[in-house]
Amino acid sequence: MRISQRALQIEPFYVMEIAKAAAQVQASSEFKKSGQQMIRLNIGEPDFTAAPLVQESAVRAVRDGTTQYTHATGLEELRGLISQWYQDRFKLKIDASRIIITAGASAALQLACLALIESGDEILMPDPSYPCNRQFAGTPKLIATDPQSRFQLSLQQVQENWTQATRGVLLASPSNPTGTSIDPIVLKSIVDFVHSKGGITLADEIYLGLSYEEQYGISALSISDQVISINSFSKYFNMTGWRLGWVVVPPTLVAPIERLAQNLFICPSTISQYAALSCFEPESLALFESRRSQFKARRDLFVPKLKAMGLEVPVMPDGAFYAWADCSSVCAKLGLAGSWELAFEFLNKAYVAVAPGRDFGVNEMQKYIRFSTASSSAQLEEAAYRLSQLIGSRL
Amino acid sequence: MRISQRALQIEPFYVMEIAKAAAQVQASSEFKKSGQQMIRLNIGEPDFTAAPLVQESAVRAVRDGTTQYTHATGLEELRGLISQWYQDRFKLKIDASRIIITAGASAALQLACLALIESGDEILMPDPSYPCNRQFAGTPKLIATDPQSRFQLSLQQVQENWTQATRGVLLASPSNPTGTSIDPIVLKSIVDFVHSKGGITLADEIYLGLSYEEQYGISALSISDQVISINSFSKYFNMTGWRLGWVVVPPTLVAPIERLAQNLFICPSTISQYAALSCFEPESLALFESRRSQFKARRDLFVPKLKAMGLEVPVMPDGAFYAWADCSSVCAKLGLAGSWELAFEFLNKAYVAVAPGRDFGVNEMQKYIRFSTASSSAQLEEAAYRLSQLIGSRL
Repeated sequence: MRISQRALQIEPFYVMEIAKAAAQVQASSEFKKSGQQMIRLNIGEPDFTAAPLVQESAVRAVRDGTTQYTHATGLEELRGLISQWYQDRFKLKIDASRIIITAGASAALQLACLALIESGDEILMPDPSYPCNRQFAGTPKLIATDPQSRFQLSLQQVQENWTQATRGVLLASPSNPTGTSIDPIVLKSIVDFVHSKGGITLADEIYLGLSYEEQYGISALSISDQVISINSFSKYFNMTGWRLGWVVVPPTLVAPIERLAQNLFICPSTISQYAALSCFEPESLALFESRRSQFKARRDLFVPKLKAMGLEVPVMPDGAFYAWADCSSVCAKLGLAGSWELAFEFLNKAYVAVAPGRDFGVNEMQKYIRFSTASSSAQLEEAAYRLSQLIGSRL
Repeated sequence: MRISQRALQIEPFYVMEIAKAAAQVQASSEFKKSGQQMIRLNIGEPDFTAAPLVQESAVRAVRDGTTQYTHATGLEELRGLISQWYQDRFKLKIDASRIIITAGASAALQLACLALIESGDEILMPDPSYPCNRQFAGTPKLIATDPQSRFQLSLQQVQENWTQATRGVLLASPSNPTGTSIDPIVLKSIVDFVHSKGGITLADEIYLGLSYEEQYGISALSISDQVISINSFSKYFNMTGWRLGWVVVPPTLVAPIERLAQNLFICPSTISQYAALSCFEPESLALFESRRSQFKARRDLFVPKLKAMGLEVPVMPDGAFYAWADCSSVCAKLGLAGSWELAFEFLNKAYVAVAPGRDFGVNEMQKYIRFSTASSSAQLEEAAYRLSQLIGSRL
């Protein structure tokens, strides 16, 4: 059976190789004898579940049978609550009609790309970046970033890489895998330049709720209502498996996206939508804010420990729950080629699973390794202890 | 902002025009004075909610917080239960590894098409058919069908329309909007011909669970393991807004579809997956079978009434919950141009909403109108009474 070029070109998730290897380690007699637990810092998923009021609303929807299809763009009430949230948290007026509820940020990005990008259109993206984003957006053009730009694109890079074939840029702020945000002044200059070229700016803001520093906790929507902002209930609202997100689009894009959504998705999960209504209750928001503090505390606990063992973190993450570490000196000390080999070393010797750089880009990815800091402080302490023992004992 | 050609070419759902007009009617003082209810036979959605055990499993997943991401291909246990269901109900051996759980049949079809169809590839489809299917599958080539072929493709049509550009066929059995299935002998001849051409057969079997006649209740998977079968928890299992479905693919297609699913969807709704495990409990299956009998009884109640008022149903539906009626003689009697005008006449004068033919195809669609028979017998009786009064009073 002839597989499409599109499907053949998708790269596997290398982190799945790590996950498979982790399962093998766990099945080994040596691991079982050790009495230790596997610590999974390879997965980008909060260890919190949905807020109590959110759970109760889900239960009510299930029991009441309010589980029929909804409108393709989602419940009007939910769109209104998100609009109010932009007002309350970001001081932004975003009309509810511009907010389209989707089956996770995945569907949000897919809809935006299908509505705007022709096959062959080039989209500029930072390298490293979230690998799935590359599968949606026309022909991705990865641009190497560095710590000086906080692993984000600079205006100059966008200008230099812009050609007749370029349709726009896809930014993520805070970024997965780096946890770093784009400088708001740079962001504005890029948005303005792209607009002047008749292009589009797609902003992946799924970690924006988990921002720890005021200067970076700014939505690209504050710059222009032509920006397309992708968001999610997975991270800040702790609803990963619920598959719910949204996209904010310019008014002219609402009707085309509605037609695409009707045809491609019918509607997002009805239960998740009713549940999400309770995300915006004061009690729930207070809980999310408390959890945000915990994520920040985990960062503040773990990043210094990484640095202390020679795993430099060139830019302190200002959001999300990732640390993007330069492992070149540790690899040199241990006689390992790079982050891919180091990931297996950590797994096999310290029972700590991490994500190797090569999952996130093509430039210098053997130099970097991604730690998720979404695990409990106790787990992070234990992981740091094991890794420092491993690195120390091999010096 | 430049909208993509793809988005511009998607036709709106005409039935949404009917829905909007229905809302206007309901807001009118005349309607309010009438004391009547609007009867909605325009929507393809069961009036049943999820089975009690399914609801309880959903509640348990929510309360226990088993709501994290799952594997992209879904819970292993659910894949196993569906495999067993094929064995029990259809006497088919379908290995669980070939079953991929998806976010509804929409995602199932999308994944299959992305894995197999290059842009420009032609896919043969019957006219009429479910309109969304045309948006997924390369370049659709609609082929006019008639009552003689049960509104399904014939082998001769497939042979005559097959060109260098043809990649395969997309069939739906039972069909939406006609409720009629393809003759199994014709199906086999088409599958064999397509296979001989190196093409693909996509079978939309989301209504197969709701089949009322043994000779037609046969999965295309019984013919060849090269067939791709799309299925859903929405219709037979009464879980529309839960957004859960599956696709059965040949073994060689599992890995490419897994990669696509990881990137495009991450995973289907975790709560819906845990809930769906309880669809296969004997108590739940007994309930679904009882509901299937009710759907059949509704058909048997309503179709003769349509015929009695001159709305001929050329082929008795053998599954699903639709009646596809030839309204040409009624339109002639009432002096109306066709089904589009008749739909508004029914709406405005009898407060009965139906779906006009033009939503489902391009050939002779003014001749046909689709009634959903998923409403209660009482509602169907009342609708038939009102329509017969309307038609009779205008003779």
